[in-house]
Parts: sequence; C-alpha cells; structure tokens
Amino acid sequence: MIFTTNKVSNAYWKVSIDNPPINLFDTDFSRQLMVLMDEMEANENLQVVVFETANPDFFVAHVELLHANDFPKGTGKTGLSIAWPDIAKRIEQAPFVSIASIRGRARGLGSEFIQAFDIRFASKEKAFFAQPEIGIGAFPGGGGLERLHLLTGKARALEIILSGDDYNAGLAAQYGWVNRAIPDAELDGFTDRFAARIASFDKQAIASVKAIMNRNATLPVNEHIMDTQTQFFAALQWKEARERIKMLFEKGLQQNSDVELNLGKYL
Amino acid sequence: MIFTTNKVSNAYWKVSIDNPPINLFDTDFSRQLMVLMDEMEANENLQVVVFETANPDFFVAHVELLHANDFPKGTGKTGLSIAWPDIAKRIEQAPFVSIASIRGRARGLGSEFIQAFDIRFASKEKAFFAQPEIGIGAFPGGGGLERLHLLTGKARALEIILSGDDYNAGLAAQYGWVNRAIPDAELDGFTDRFAARIASFDKQAIASVKAIMNRNATLPVNEHIMDTQTQFFAALQWKEARERIKMLFEKGLQQNSDVELNLGKYL
Amino acid sequence: MIFTTNKVSNAYWKVSIDNPPINLFDTDFSRQLMVLMDEMEANENLQVVVFETANPDFFVAHVELLHANDFPKGTGKTGLSIAWPDIAKRIEQAPFVSIASIRGRARGLGSEFIQAFDIRFASKEKAFFAQPEIGIGAFPGGGGLERLHLLTGKARALEIILSGDDYNAGLAAQYGWVNRAIPDAELDGFTDRFAARIASFDKQAIASVKAIMNRNATLPVNEHIMDTQTQFFAALQWKEARERIKMLFEKGLQQNSDVELNLGKYL
Repeated sequence: MIFTTNKVSNAYWKVSIDNPPINLFDTDFSRQLMVLMDEMEANENLQVVVFETANPDFFVAHVELLHANDFPKGTGKTGLSIAWPDIAKRIEQAPFVSIASIRGRARGLGSEFIQAFDIRFASKEKAFFAQPEIGIGAFPGGGGLERLHLLTGKARALEIILSGDDYNAGLAAQYGWVNRAIPDAELDGFTDRFAARIASFDKQAIASVKAIMNRNATLPVNEHIMDTQTQFFAALQWKEARERIKMLFEKGLQQNSDVELNLGKYL
Repeated sequence: MIFTTNKVSNAYWKVSIDNPPINLFDTDFSRQLMVLMDEMEANENLQVVVFETANPDFFVAHVELLHANDFPKGTGKTGLSIAWPDIAKRIEQAPFVSIASIRGRARGLGSEFIQAFDIRFASKEKAFFAQPEIGIGAFPGGGGLERLHLLTGKARALEIILSGDDYNAGLAAQYGWVNRAIPDAELDGFTDRFAARIASFDKQAIASVKAIMNRNATLPVNEHIMDTQTQFFAALQWKEARERIKMLFEKGLQQNSDVELNLGKYL
Repeated sequence: MIFTTNKVSNAYWKVSIDNPPINLFDTDFSRQLMVLMDEMEANENLQVVVFETANPDFFVAHVELLHANDFPKGTGKTGLSIAWPDIAKRIEQAPFVSIASIRGRARGLGSEFIQAFDIRFASKEKAFFAQPEIGIGAFPGGGGLERLHLLTGKARALEIILSGDDYNAGLAAQYGWVNRAIPDAELDGFTDRFAARIASFDKQAIASVKAIMNRNATLPVNEHIMDTQTQFFAALQWKEARERIKMLFEKGLQQNSDVELNLGKYL
C-alpha cells in the first residue's frame, strides 16, 4: 500500500505516501491513487485531506521513467487522461479541501502533483522543489506548464522550468509555488491545526467556496493539459532525451542516491 | 456622521471612518457611503482620496448581521446592487485614485471594502485581516470571492477564506492582500506623502492610467459578484449558519469585546 | 555601436549596452536594436541571451524625448509598430531565452525594455526601477500598462505607475517586477552560471517551453499596446506635459545629472 489513510475524523483524513525507496510516481502509485480518489469522492463527510510523506527525504521524487508506457491508459470522468491529468482535475474540482504538507523533494511530476492541491505548506529546511525535465531534454508534461505560472507568474515559472534547478522552500514561498514555508519542527502541528479547523466548519460552506472560486479564477485549460502531455511523451523519444536519461540512470537515477538527493547539480 | 472628510486640497481628500463602537459596516454606513461616493464623483478636481479609521483597533470590523435585511435595495448605475457592489465598482472605475490606509481589523466586508480600493497600505503592527465568513457557516458575499484571488492568487485566497483566520499585515503584504506593510509610526506620514505626490500630478494623466489599466487587467465579473452575493444571503439562512451566528453573539459579537478583537480564535 | 555582443558560445550570447552618457533609448538605440534582433532571430544555435549594461549607474535611463518624432515608423512582422512594440513581441515569442541582468536605473521605456524579457535578475544594491511618466504629465506608452500588472498584479502596478517614484531592487523583487534581487558582487556570476546552464540544455526543449508557455499564459494584447502607445504620444503634446518636460530639461534631464540619478525626487 503506497497510500495509508489515517481517518482522524469523518471530516479529516491524513494520507501518508510511502513508495520506497524514493516515492517515485510509478504505475502502482498511479493505480492506487485512482482507487484512493474514488474513495475520497464517495465519502460524503470528507471536508479536508492532508497528504504527507513517510520518507523525510522525498515527498514525490518524480515520474518513473523506465516503464512510462505501462501507465494506465484511457479517459476519465473529466475528459482528461486517467494516468494523472484526470486525477489532478478531480482534486481541483472536489468539494473537499486538499492540502499538501511537504517535506523532502517534490520534483517533476512530484511538483505537478502538489500543484493540483488547493493549498501547499512546506518544511522550510527540508522541502525542495524542481521542474527538472529540461535536464533530460524534455519539459513538464503533467501540468507544470499549465499550473505553475498560475502560482508564480510567467517570469518565475519560466525561470524554474528553464533552469531545471532545485529551489528551497523559502524561495518557493517567495515565488508563490507554495503558500508558506514553515519551520520543520512546526510544520506537522501547524498543518494539523489548520486542517482540523477546516474540519470544524460547515461542509456546505466549504463546498460553496471551492465551487465559486473554481468558477471565478483562471484554471488550466483541458486542451492545453492534454496537448502538452502528448508533446511530453513524444519528447521523451527524442535522441537527445534518451541519451540524457541513460546518462542519469548510470549515475544513480531512481535509486536512493546522491543524484536523487541533489538532482539539480547533475543535470 | 460616519465619514468625516478632510479636504487637504481640492485634489486630495482624507476620509476618516468613525462608527462606534467597532466600525461595523451597517445600514447607516452603507447609506452614508453612497452619499460620499456621489460627492466624490461629482467633484471634478479630486485626484486622490485616502480612507483611514478614527478607531485604532478597527478599520471596518465586518457587516452588521442583525439587520441585514434593512440594507438599501435596488440596482445602481453600474448595474450592480446598491448595497455595496455598486459602490465597489464605482471606486474601481473612478477617475481618481483610492487608497486605504489600514490600522485595526478589516474582516469580512471590511476586508472586501479595502479590496475595492486601488492601493492598500497597512500598519505592520496594528492591521489585521480576515475573511471569517466560513466561521459563521457561510462564505464571502461582498466581493471577496471575486477580488481576493486577483490580489493573492487562488491558492492563498483559498487558504485565507477556508481558514477564516486572522492574518497580520506582514503576511498580508507577502500574499499581496495589501501593497505594503509599513511600521505603524511611519504609516500616516508615508501615506500622506504618497497621496500628496499623486495630487501634484496631472489629473488627466491619472484618469488615463486608471482607464487603461481597467481595460487591460482582469477585473471581477459583475454576474459573479451578484450571484455570489445572492448565494451569501441564502447561506445566512442555513440552520448551521444561524446557530453559529447565535453562539458568537452570545460571546460578544458586534460589541467592543475580545471576540471582535480576536475573532479568528473564536470561530 | 550601442550593443556589443560577446558570443560566449554558439548557444549563449552576452550583449552589453553602452550609449553614453546615460544609456538613453534614443533613435540610434532603436535602429541598432532592430539589427541585433534580426541577427539573434537568424541564428539557429542561439539558446540564451543576457543583456547587461556597460554603465553601472544606468541600465536604460528612459526614452529620448527631444527627437521622439524621429523614431522609425512602420509596422513590423508582428503587426506592431517597429519603434519598440514589435521588438518587444519578438523577444517574447523568440525560441531563445532572454535575460536582463540589471544594474543601474531602468526607468520608463528602460523598465518597459526589461519587462519584455523572459527573466529579470537585479543588483540588490545598484538596480533601481521606475515608471516616471506620470511626472511628465503622461503615462507608460511602451508596454508598461500592458505588461507590468502581469508581473506585479494590478494594485502594485497602479502604485508604481501612479507614484512615478523610484523602487529599489528588494522591493521590485517583492512585487515581482524582477525575478530576484541578488547581491551586486554575486550578480554577474549568478547570471552567467544561470545562462550557461540553459545553454547546456537541448534547444528544442527550450523552444517548446517558451512556445507552450506563450500559448498558456496571459500575454499583452496587441491592440491594447498600440492604442496605449498612440495615447502616449498624444499625451506628450498636452500643455501640462510640455511644461513639465521643459522644467525637467532645465534641471538636467537626459544628462549625467542628479536629476537622472534621483529622478523620483524631482518629479
């Protein structure tokens, strides 16, 4: 089980992510997340869910690259591909509040994973963020090009995506990538109090806030998300990309290695 | 008189808000604001207006809840309801510059009041902000769901609205809720110099800046504002909301009380 | 030669701006920039270009006002006026990455010049920014009313444009006007490593990032840019503007003077 759900109350769930060794977003992650999403949507009392990591070094490392063809195929209820874009849209549209409490690395699809949440809190000392795809000769394919600029503005999104470098939580908060950077010792308590507070409010009012905000605010366009994902999978087949990926695997990619701890330096 | 206008010059007016005990946005506030708005629009020399509070603890506490049905009804010249949305749009569209110089609490409709201004300066030590409606089982109905995310981005607007909690001026400035947090001892001097500077410029150029910016930038949609306000008044009638409001009144709501000073804790 | 190009590599060019005494954006600047733009677009290997200044006090001071009628006339390949709006759009749409490394003053058209770049890094101690047009009885005419609010939000753009005042790099970074403020001693090294890193990546991936982002993000509207420019040139003929400009020239405008170093104080 990659996702362990702690039902703090009927209204407040905590989900812990544990996919050793580095919390890769692999095909199992994808399939189990679909089951969890169905379960959350089916629960009429759920008001707030917090996602956290069991691995303090990695929140979600990135997409698993060796078996990219094995991700589930097809179209979900949102009209988007079920592998991830459909789940991202369902998190956005859900009547409950989604919070990412981030410790460790959230890079590539890991960064795009948290961008789909309503709210992001990050450990000031232990959370790191990147969109490293440019370093493998590609570009963000899981929503980073559709959602990151809505958080940070276009100029800072271009800086992040074109550098592919690691960003600490302080800079991520300054840029709007996350809501706040919180001292690591306080993160769990802060997030827990924040979520419990929301769980104490009226479910109908929470659902109204999300529905009205989703009507008013600029949201990613479905056609953009799907076109970019298609371009991303094509880019992974470029000669340049295949060579860069091969070299990174030789250095320790997808293992609990210095490459994964400090990916920004290796690109 | 809730609003006292100090005409520093023909081009620069200062308006002090004084509606004891806690500067509630009540029916008198609404009616007198309509008169003041007419007066400002009618004045051809006015270039800049600063709103400040006579009460250092409260800028505008929030909407008055016991007589919500007595607010003026009808449609204003903008096509929006006259109770407040029409005034907010007229402030936005005015050829003069509106500045809120904020000391004390600006919660709920008080927060939405300042969101309608062009520019917001806040006392670093003494200004506090909240959209506390979720705590009474409702949601922002006076523009907060239409304007706040344009200032802070969607993620931080959701955090603010879903928590209903109090935010100090430093965090409000970091989020973009206000332009700047300024040390309390410097706030009045800073705002006065800023406004006097604008008053020294050419009225036609100022009006052009506002007109062009209003054409270029994303503005709240009239239909969204009206639909949300309608939903808000309906939500106040929900059983959950009526019970929460009743409980808060028993603790001291709408009085100069610890509840009003520290509303975030009581929700 | 106002622009000296140092081809660090085929993929990475550095352009130094030198137009004594204060790097005015004059007719020569405009014509030579058009030639440079053609050269950059024609080069198939170029991935990243950094613009910096040879004059530590001035990045680009502002537009030259005495010969405003002599700027090149006509429409460029983007459908925009060639004097500057066409170049700005071509920088935005280029398949290579444009970075401004800013030291000294970037005011008016100098500020609008850097707003057209993808990414902006500024010297924390030595970079200063302003849209001072209100001080000459006009308003930004070279894109400032179309691009600045996309970086800073509407409220802070209005503050900047309506005050006409000088902003240091720290506040500019807080507002999003620049990506980051970097200690002056580190700026050159930081920008160089950042650009060299981008130059090490795959050109096709970089071009895809820019193309997709330009499709997804909010961009300035051509019609708005042209209409504002037309209004700007008309405003320069207003009596109020002509008098304000005349007074500033008498104090030392367009010379290496205290007026140009501290323009905000003189407006």
